Amino acid sequence: MDWKPLISGARSRITSHLVETPTLTVQSFGLGYPVQMKLEHLQHTGSFKARGAFNTLLSQPVPKAGLVAASGGNHGAAVAYAARALGHSAKIYVPEIAGQAKIDLIRSTGADIDVVPGTYANALESAQVWERETGAMQIHAYDAPATVAGQGTLFAEWDSQGLDADTVLVAVGGGGLIAGALGWLQGKRKVVAVEPATSCALKAALMTGAPVDVEVSGIAANALGARRIGDLCFELAQAADMQSLIVSDAAIETAQHALWRDHRLLVEPAGATALAALMSGAYLPERGEKVAVLLCGGNIDPEPLSDPATQLDVSFA
Amino acid sequence: MDWKPLISGARSRITSHLVETPTLTVQSFGLGYPVQMKLEHLQHTGSFKARGAFNTLLSQPVPKAGLVAASGGNHGAAVAYAARALGHSAKIYVPEIAGQAKIDLIRSTGADIDVVPGTYANALESAQVWERETGAMQIHAYDAPATVAGQGTLFAEWDSQGLDADTVLVAVGGGGLIAGALGWLQGKRKVVAVEPATSCALKAALMTGAPVDVEVSGIAANALGARRIGDLCFELAQAADMQSLIVSDAAIETAQHALWRDHRLLVEPAGATALAALMSGAYLPERGEKVAVLLCGGNIDPEPLSDPATQLDVSFA
Repeated sequence: MDWKPLISGARSRITSHLVETPTLTVQSFGLGYPVQMKLEHLQHTGSFKARGAFNTLLSQPVPKAGLVAASGGNHGAAVAYAARALGHSAKIYVPEIAGQAKIDLIRSTGADIDVVPGTYANALESAQVWERETGAMQIHAYDAPATVAGQGTLFAEWDSQGLDADTVLVAVGGGGLIAGALGWLQGKRKVVAVEPATSCALKAALMTGAPVDVEVSGIAANALGARRIGDLCFELAQAADMQSLIVSDAAIETAQHALWRDHRLLVEPAGATALAALMSGAYLPERGEKVAVLLCGGNIDPEPLSDPATQLDVSFA
Repeated sequence: MDWKPLISGARSRITSHLVETPTLTVQSFGLGYPVQMKLEHLQHTGSFKARGAFNTLLSQPVPKAGLVAASGGNHGAAVAYAARALGHSAKIYVPEIAGQAKIDLIRSTGADIDVVPGTYANALESAQVWERETGAMQIHAYDAPATVAGQGTLFAEWDSQGLDADTVLVAVGGGGLIAGALGWLQGKRKVVAVEPATSCALKAALMTGAPVDVEVSGIAANALGARRIGDLCFELAQAADMQSLIVSDAAIETAQHALWRDHRLLVEPAGATALAALMSGAYLPERGEKVAVLLCGGNIDPEPLSDPATQLDVSFA
């Protein structure tokens, strides 16, 4: 598939609905070399997922019954946000384990939200019943061409902002984002996947030679915990002979703290996963190699302003 | 005083030590018009204060005894950081009411830190004793030409990044930052000051016709709570016939929450004060008027990652 025209088409379709997220180059984190970053966690609903959701809704007919999603996370919030922005109704089934911050985030979009007792599987079952009964449309979180093309716009945008890197590191869950990266950057820059040790569907697929189910857990699992890598991602990754690097939860947490400590960037664990590969030494750039990392999501739980003590410090100078 | 050459000189002096902080244009916060923002809270030590500190240290001889500051806040952290980066020793007296997060921030620079029982006045007294006994140098937090020129580099940088605004809103404490804004932007763009209702030394000075002491309190007082506006700021503000707008603590808190909710920007109350003037209606742009707000600081307390529950959410999708 020739992804570049699909991504360019997606970009002109969705740009007016999105934030052009800023980029930043720093010499920090104790690394001894500069790192370029794109702050995609500042996107609407706090992750890149809005890109794929808008592209899907703007490139195909949406039924009168609107959208349905089973999600307590970034995809659900993005679908709910895009639906409201474009005037479609959205029904979102959220597993109660999603936590109050994410439930509030989705509710704030005005979506019709049902909190379902149990886990993601229970929410998915309810969503499928709703889909059958009403004809509402589902948007795949990562393994559909319109989703991948939408996520690919992030890298087209980064290029136009002056991305100057030999190598771009991207965290991987189901693979929609890195598929977009490969679709746009392939041949021009090296794309490196980074996965948590306890949630590495791409690594497992590359080792096996085909997508396989994996167990998922760990601090980034609420965003990166896909049980099986998407077919679109797998094909692109295999064709590119792409590396997938593994980082521990401890390394992710260290990177998350470093982003806050050095630059007041507050991201969720998934958003710090790509940087963790540099800080842990899982990826060691060659001398002079220019590296870039994507900060892909910022939906941490609990809400960081929920603690009233935040507002009580009144010392001066 | 002709500030532009001083600011240009400062810029070439300090640029290599600083982050070129990113800019961002969004249509959010329920405002109905676009707002340009510069994310200066991503600067080293979480505020613009590093600019003035580096400019001071790089434009005059530093005694062997190094630096001394009495501060539990952004200025102290910036002085400590700049001192370490340039190989000077720094002694920082911190009032114990500063809170653990800011004490840890200053300690992390490697500065020699003394936590002084009591308030800011007690820390200042200790600092003055140290200064007399050792010959260490103090850096004024806002009312010195090298400080003002350093802060002014922020606006020179913003201009070179394509600032496209008729009006720039800036929070004011002691006035070093807005003096830099007036020094650089004056005549080219309207500069509007924003002060908390319970900490408005500039407003009081403009009404009185001279700097006067004011009482300070409220949620932004740990950064904006100067008791008296600096003379350099006052002269520039009076000459420019500048407006100073007042916002309530509730409006600041609303803006702080909106920055997190809409764009995952986590700032301290002072960092949300300029936006609060737009969201509260204290400043109402004319039709077509382009506005920009500066996010000047991000040192919230407590540390947002200090809650272990942040890491415990493992729902997916």
